[in-house]
Amino acid sequence: MPRDAPPLPPREAFTVTRLIRFSHTDPAGIVYFPEYFDMCNAVIEDWLAEEMKVDYPTLTLKERLGTPVVHAECDFYVPSRWGDRIQLSLLVERLGRASLAYRIIGHSGGIVRLAARIVVAFIHLDSGKTLPLPEPFRQKVEAYRVKTGALP
Amino acid sequence: MPRDAPPLPPREAFTVTRLIRFSHTDPAGIVYFPEYFDMCNAVIEDWLAEEMKVDYPTLTLKERLGTPVVHAECDFYVPSRWGDRIQLSLLVERLGRASLAYRIIGHSGGIVRLAARIVVAFIHLDSGKTLPLPEPFRQKVEAYRVKTGALP
Amino acid sequence: MPRDAPPLPPREAFTVTRLIRFSHTDPAGIVYFPEYFDMCNAVIEDWLAEEMKVDYPTLTLKERLGTPVVHAECDFYVPSRWGDRIQLSLLVERLGRASLAYRIIGHSGGIVRLAARIVVAFIHLDSGKTLPLPEPFRQKVEAYRVKTGALP
Amino acid sequence: MPRDAPPLPPREAFTVTRLIRFSHTDPAGIVYFPEYFDMCNAVIEDWLAEEMKVDYPTLTLKERLGTPVVHAECDFYVPSRWGDRIQLSLLVERLGRASLAYRIIGHSGGIVRLAARIVVAFIHLDSGKTLPLPEPFRQKVEAYRVKTGALP
Repeated sequence: MPRDAPPLPPREAFTVTRLIRFSHTDPAGIVYFPEYFDMCNAVIEDWLAEEMKVDYPTLTLKERLGTPVVHAECDFYVPSRWGDRIQLSLLVERLGRASLAYRIIGHSGGIVRLAARIVVAFIHLDSGKTLPLPEPFRQKVEAYRVKTGALP
Repeated sequence: MPRDAPPLPPREAFTVTRLIRFSHTDPAGIVYFPEYFDMCNAVIEDWLAEEMKVDYPTLTLKERLGTPVVHAECDFYVPSRWGDRIQLSLLVERLGRASLAYRIIGHSGGIVRLAARIVVAFIHLDSGKTLPLPEPFRQKVEAYRVKTGALP
Repeated sequence: MPRDAPPLPPREAFTVTRLIRFSHTDPAGIVYFPEYFDMCNAVIEDWLAEEMKVDYPTLTLKERLGTPVVHAECDFYVPSRWGDRIQLSLLVERLGRASLAYRIIGHSGGIVRLAARIVVAFIHLDSGKTLPLPEPFRQKVEAYRVKTGALP
Repeated sequence: MPRDAPPLPPREAFTVTRLIRFSHTDPAGIVYFPEYFDMCNAVIEDWLAEEMKVDYPTLTLKERLGTPVVHAECDFYVPSRWGDRIQLSLLVERLGRASLAYRIIGHSGGIVRLAARIVVAFIHLDSGKTLPLPEPFRQKVEAYRVKTGALP
């Protein structure tokens, strides 16, 4: 396991597999790092749709609930190359009144390759004002946090 | 100035202006956050070429000196929209034996919009082993740090 | 069916389903057109791996067989939006001595949304010279063409 | 000059210079072809702003005039690599009632590297119906066509 890498996510975590494509990689043969942030965003989309059963496009475009990213970070431990398959697992690290901190762990064969943190605010797209998370959604997120255990 | 935002960079900092394009922005009308990491990478490229006078493509492709990103983070304070022009200023926050930590501040009209930190390692692309920074380059980076002052 | 759109691909065509993501779409709410070319490239990758059983990364990076795109075009008939699922089907329109012309049809619910043509050359990456398609690969492509019928 | 390449654009054509960046290139060391379509879109943006003096963001986002791409194609003659600088020149090939066909020629050192054609429709973003080009804009486009000569 790479030095300093966080532990593998629990088995209960929502996990997707991603194939590393030609287009993700750079002249040095490894994934160009902004692509990982794009992959993290896609994992959040998939988690909202499949695990939280939220219709994210409708929520954003029709109900004008925006979720701008206010902080994003990632540690890269092991590079990935064209043709690799990596697992990306999502945990909810913090559940604020009008914000959510996601933890996304990328791993393969039991080795952590990257670990990201993405913090989003909940705002009304027209006014720009923060919005508390809708209560039914908050309850589902809480249940997901219980299911996936406390974060280390 | 947004709450918690870092101060504006000193005037001596290497600064480029970027036009926010249609393709940078998302259905909510603001820059899609991974695009900022791509912009930060381009600022590092420009700083290496124009301020450090380093031939980065040759260094990477011919001399096989790789600079993989080991950590990237960004705080987003004020969104940017299609047609905006922002300034991106680069500081060198830390100069390790075989690593560099860049600080990149995005601002417009005296207001900080984003603040990123990008840490790269220096490795040999074939062996994957870390390499100390070449001495002439280290000296130029040190001089740049002196010129741009200590970081807050 | 949109005016001038080509017919739907035959059932035997290699077909993948793609979810349109937030990151594919633009401030007008529809897919930003260069993203479709990226999706087409991914379909070709998947077809090579899954239908032709070719190890494309090894072929390119180890055996130095490059497949640069020499021509790419696409007609866009019906826009796609965040949350849509589209099918992308691949046909081989022309099989040259050292080139391949792919036809990729994007459709949803029996309606053609886009139709692309991607022509790649086969070259040796180091010399830049064209290479005839390897014979076993040519035979598999021919068999695929027979299976999917003549193109209209 | 590469076989079959179109002639260089006239000197009067609107031309921008682009630096090929690390992020544009792929594991084979050359520009990943969808990036060229993104560059072409940026050239159209720059031409509208700088040559036609059109406020494109306002036109799209406030006045809801959309310009979806209905056809895009590109021939690639000479690859570009990280660190190259290429010129991209824009011509207006056809001026329809509610559409525009752009011709974009990429060249360097007097050699044509790529030649694209991008056709956009003019529509109202809310109704989706085609809109004739606004008359003052049409006149400026006509004047630009006269200035840059008839296309070959």
